[in-house]
Amino acid sequence: MLTVFGDIRSGNCLKVKWMLDWLRHDYKWIETDIMAGGSRTPEFLSLNSAGQVPTLLLEDGRPLAQSNAILLHLGEGTDLIPADAYDRARMLEWMFWEQYSHEPYVAVARFQRVYEGRKADQVEPRLMERGRAALDRLEAALTDRDWLVGTAPSLADLALVAYTRVAHEGGFDLTPLPAVRAWIQRVETAFGIG
Amino acid sequence: MLTVFGDIRSGNCLKVKWMLDWLRHDYKWIETDIMAGGSRTPEFLSLNSAGQVPTLLLEDGRPLAQSNAILLHLGEGTDLIPADAYDRARMLEWMFWEQYSHEPYVAVARFQRVYEGRKADQVEPRLMERGRAALDRLEAALTDRDWLVGTAPSLADLALVAYTRVAHEGGFDLTPLPAVRAWIQRVETAFGIG
Repeated sequence: MLTVFGDIRSGNCLKVKWMLDWLRHDYKWIETDIMAGGSRTPEFLSLNSAGQVPTLLLEDGRPLAQSNAILLHLGEGTDLIPADAYDRARMLEWMFWEQYSHEPYVAVARFQRVYEGRKADQVEPRLMERGRAALDRLEAALTDRDWLVGTAPSLADLALVAYTRVAHEGGFDLTPLPAVRAWIQRVETAFGIG
Repeated sequence: MLTVFGDIRSGNCLKVKWMLDWLRHDYKWIETDIMAGGSRTPEFLSLNSAGQVPTLLLEDGRPLAQSNAILLHLGEGTDLIPADAYDRARMLEWMFWEQYSHEPYVAVARFQRVYEGRKADQVEPRLMERGRAALDRLEAALTDRDWLVGTAPSLADLALVAYTRVAHEGGFDLTPLPAVRAWIQRVETAFGIG
């Protein structure tokens, strides 16, 4: 059986859970408290020397890390990876952009609020500024389309929705972003995210 | 013909150049001065609303951004993407890790030195600390192997070498990392990087 080491509050970990649920895969979830050093034990580091969740163990025990790499591995052969080469490349573009230009701001602002208990005025201003820019870019991209790539949900939507749907917990106001809000609902429905 | 908007000092842009050269592809390189706002003009933003280089234009003019997404697109059907599903997933893991845990520190420290002209003691300490951790992780991974994944060079090596080979320009000392130094030479030879 597949095993996931994950933190149930982490969008990166939830991506993997949603994907496995969507695939109707059996798996064992091992809740890992990153704030208590759960991803820094010798046992954990022997599976993933980066000390990061999520980490997936395949049936044979081989480890795989990085949420979006896990999505791409689990998604092979499914409709969530576009058959068209350009659409597939654009999906990858969104997934790398998510980890470089969205997650480090939108998710980290939320981390400072939710995990570290900071107040709004204690969150680094740079995170709010760049997080807002990322959300604005999403709004523009989604204004005339239902899905980030092509005409159907892909791994890009799953990857991007993870922290976008909880951006308000980091202090980001989604009220002025109607296309993003409608898209969140579409993606949640498509993947059965409740 | 393919067109690349790139900054010739940027490792992310050089990845694309090396890949196209390795493939013996014809392409047009449009040098884009990011410090002078070259990636923030209305024309550029219409191609890539993230305002980032590299941005590739395909033969038909359609744009593609994110260096590692470009490598994956150009690399389809080549030996640089492993045939084995697990090796392929690990390659992706390294490529996402590069953009999340290596580039934002190793490349940004170098950016502050090379582009912004800061002195060593003006670089954010957090960048040096996390950059060193990333380089140490690479050293451990490469101590008993020639390539990051499997037994041949892959896109993971190309993606990771880009900023590792110029890490010293950001103030990182590679002297205590012999496996990394030997690997850099191997990757440079394999891809004809001079």
